[in-house]
Amino acid sequence: VTEYRLRCFAQSGNAYKPALALALAGADWEPVFVDYFNGETHTPEFRELNPMGEVPVLEAGELRLSQSGVILDYLSQRFPDFGPRSEEERREILRWTLWDNHKLTSYIATLRFQMKFLPEERRQPEVIEFLTKRSDAALHVLDRHLFSNEWIAADHLTTADLSCVGYLYYDHEFPHDFATFPNIDRWRRAITGLPGWKHPYDLMPGHPIPPGALS
Amino acid sequence: VTEYRLRCFAQSGNAYKPALALALAGADWEPVFVDYFNGETHTPEFRELNPMGEVPVLEAGELRLSQSGVILDYLSQRFPDFGPRSEEERREILRWTLWDNHKLTSYIATLRFQMKFLPEERRQPEVIEFLTKRSDAALHVLDRHLFSNEWIAADHLTTADLSCVGYLYYDHEFPHDFATFPNIDRWRRAITGLPGWKHPYDLMPGHPIPPGALS
Repeated sequence: VTEYRLRCFAQSGNAYKPALALALAGADWEPVFVDYFNGETHTPEFRELNPMGEVPVLEAGELRLSQSGVILDYLSQRFPDFGPRSEEERREILRWTLWDNHKLTSYIATLRFQMKFLPEERRQPEVIEFLTKRSDAALHVLDRHLFSNEWIAADHLTTADLSCVGYLYYDHEFPHDFATFPNIDRWRRAITGLPGWKHPYDLMPGHPIPPGALS
Repeated sequence: VTEYRLRCFAQSGNAYKPALALALAGADWEPVFVDYFNGETHTPEFRELNPMGEVPVLEAGELRLSQSGVILDYLSQRFPDFGPRSEEERREILRWTLWDNHKLTSYIATLRFQMKFLPEERRQPEVIEFLTKRSDAALHVLDRHLFSNEWIAADHLTTADLSCVGYLYYDHEFPHDFATFPNIDRWRRAITGLPGWKHPYDLMPGHPIPPGALS
């Protein structure tokens, strides 16, 4: 039996956040595929695992954890390399994890869903424009921050980096041009270079989506 | 000199979260008005306090904290009544605070901004419809949770409650009918009954907005 089981699917950047932590830590873990595009997160079985109906869920022994930020917090206790080394770093990690949830992931994940996963007739151009502007503003905040900081919340990689980078390897699926965010690009490539790194489509099961699942 | 100074304004539910914590704790604090609607958060002086350009900012001695969730975390160390009593409660508080930032506040605050603060000619009906649906889904998740839980993350009021309730006293400014969320309504009224509670418009300066500030 593996030590950690992560309910996930390849297209979920929120699942990628802890999956990448486990991969970079060299943990004894396995991904467990959730068939999101065929409605698995709406089944009673899945709702018992997580009443919020969201991926990821981490299983570690008797423990069941949901919300990527909670799982990252837990993994940083198990793998202290990704965690804070002071109370100030702990707060900075929390600050950027909350910011990611509020200002970056909430808009960029929803934008990608509208552009890439909704059937064409259900896409809303005004909503796409709105979410594009919001994501763009968040990416500018992050790019400015990474101009003067190598990593997001400390002088080493922390779970705040893993949270913020969650959706940023799906970049060809957004309208943004990452060449205009040179500091994000440098930071993203630094993470790519770490031992154990894999693209979300290689790290988690379910890519590509079977034809017909999105209709 | 007061112990805590909170940069805030009456219309900000994110500022209300720590303001309410300070009020309920009976802390020695004062609100410091930020003239958001006249652009104060874009000034170099404010950006020096918080490069993200966001309210609230808490000043406590030499400490400067931003992000409501970080400030709430700090205040729960100073006022442990609002904090966790176990590691499990700590995680539950984090889980719901992240959820609030990701799924509730991010949509409901933006919806209210579109409906109430944007000049009429800049409002986008498709965006309002989209944000209304997203907020509605989040309120249903919260209402179901509060059906079987008196408080959000423990058997007592915690900062997770203060985070989630941040925008919910501005209810006449949303399209939602709170009568359809009876458990949220019960919980919200329980908070209203606590000693020190005040409505955001009474607790923080800047209400009403001066005529002309929104054009």
